[in-house]
Amino acid sequence: MTEFMDVHHNMKGITPADLLAAHNADVAIQDDEHVKFKKAWADPVTGRAFCLSEGPSADAVRRIHERTGHPADEIHEVTVTV
Amino acid sequence: MTEFMDVHHNMKGITPADLLAAHNADVAIQDDEHVKFKKAWADPVTGRAFCLSEGPSADAVRRIHERTGHPADEIHEVTVTV
Repeated sequence: MTEFMDVHHNMKGITPADLLAAHNADVAIQDDEHVKFKKAWADPVTGRAFCLSEGPSADAVRRIHERTGHPADEIHEVTVTV
Repeated sequence: MTEFMDVHHNMKGITPADLLAAHNADVAIQDDEHVKFKKAWADPVTGRAFCLSEGPSADAVRRIHERTGHPADEIHEVTVTV
């Protein structure tokens, strides 16, 4: 399993309830792709959201986010961490 | 204190040793700005690096990264998390 950081670009005005709902929708179906969404951070002013997950591939992460209606604009395989 | 996610765009080929050295350089002077760098993730293929920190302002984070020679390309105040 590898970690991924995916980025959403158009989340201006996102509220805690919005982010929680989006996260819960991902978590509800993540097992279908053997993905585990671990954490998410969002800036309502710049509209960027970052999701940290673990899974078998970027495509697996991409498919979950697409099915829940918030496709990722970028997905990075973050193999180097500190 | 607020959390910030800053992003570096041109880190292609970054190694674990590179990221650790950069992180340690930031940590060594972070107290000057009351910033605490908590975690960093990097994708050596796409060249993106993400740093999660806590501090008084985006400018404080920006100044630390500038002084250590790896200025951030984006800094987001991530007030919404899950």
